[in-house]
Amino acid sequence: MTTSHPDRAAARTKTIMQATLALAQEVGYAKLSIEAVAARAGVGKHTIYRRWPSKGLLFLDSLLSLNEPVFDYPDTGDIVADLRRQICTVVDLLANPPWGPLYQALVGEAQHDPAVAAGLNERFIRPQTDKTIVRLRAAQEQGQVSSDMDLDLVMATLSGPLYFRLLITQEPLTHNYVDRVLEALFAGMSPRL
Amino acid sequence: MTTSHPDRAAARTKTIMQATLALAQEVGYAKLSIEAVAARAGVGKHTIYRRWPSKGLLFLDSLLSLNEPVFDYPDTGDIVADLRRQICTVVDLLANPPWGPLYQALVGEAQHDPAVAAGLNERFIRPQTDKTIVRLRAAQEQGQVSSDMDLDLVMATLSGPLYFRLLITQEPLTHNYVDRVLEALFAGMSPRL
Repeated sequence: MTTSHPDRAAARTKTIMQATLALAQEVGYAKLSIEAVAARAGVGKHTIYRRWPSKGLLFLDSLLSLNEPVFDYPDTGDIVADLRRQICTVVDLLANPPWGPLYQALVGEAQHDPAVAAGLNERFIRPQTDKTIVRLRAAQEQGQVSSDMDLDLVMATLSGPLYFRLLITQEPLTHNYVDRVLEALFAGMSPRL
Repeated sequence: MTTSHPDRAAARTKTIMQATLALAQEVGYAKLSIEAVAARAGVGKHTIYRRWPSKGLLFLDSLLSLNEPVFDYPDTGDIVADLRRQICTVVDLLANPPWGPLYQALVGEAQHDPAVAAGLNERFIRPQTDKTIVRLRAAQEQGQVSSDMDLDLVMATLSGPLYFRLLITQEPLTHNYVDRVLEALFAGMSPRL
């Protein structure tokens, strides 16, 4: 049986990404090295460097490739329930061990490496923002959210409080916290009439 | 003229912090080293290490010591105007050059170094949170914000969208953005009745 070149390349990519994630979980992101990934994956380090110029970009690819499918929005017709379910899915994955510390380290790396920041935005934040806007525009049309709501801002207001807790106060991100954030954002700070 | 020991220590601390900030602006946080700070300040590096066990903690101290006074909340009786003025003051300082890249690097460091994260929270985030809650509780009592508003969450909802832009999308933080965030948070996402 022969394997075609694209299949072999895909299998090697998968092996490298699995080695990256396994090692990152074992030693932590700070101690992860492309040399160690190459050794674990059984490839030369130049094979990795040809495709990923930095460990930040390799790790970004590894993290996102395995998990993109879970980030689709449900649409049950109840915007609060759907936001809650989608945000809790993301939070369960990205804010808890084993992913939590790794995603946090990736965002930390994005503060020092503009290529990682750009990749994080292009690969993960921008697509999530687009999906969020599509889901919220539908909710606006159904009268479930205010027609005045600034759709361009909504990813920042929805995700910002989660990132604040993940990156700044570094307290645990719980479903209860997601509930409280959604309640606060839907109610608004203005006095009730 | 003789100088008492506490005065000499305070002067030396000031010299070290000024050297830290000057060097950080010249070479960037990533290339900052305690050795270079010691040389610039004219002290031995052990003098620095005795007080600051890492460059992250030295930089945190240097950044915050010089700027704590500006973060007090005004109280003109108009909560939206006061929030706007206070947030714009912080944004002008922390999100623009020369501080912006340095503060961003500090938060990046906090993702890898728990002592920096703890120091950032104790020295800057917690006191700001306390001041924000005091100011908003007064506004609640004056009927300017909803009595249902979750005061424990308000720092996350107010600051989160700013940190999201600073750390994740890395777009410029402008006064217009602050205005839009405040407008969105006060109005809420629920449909207007």
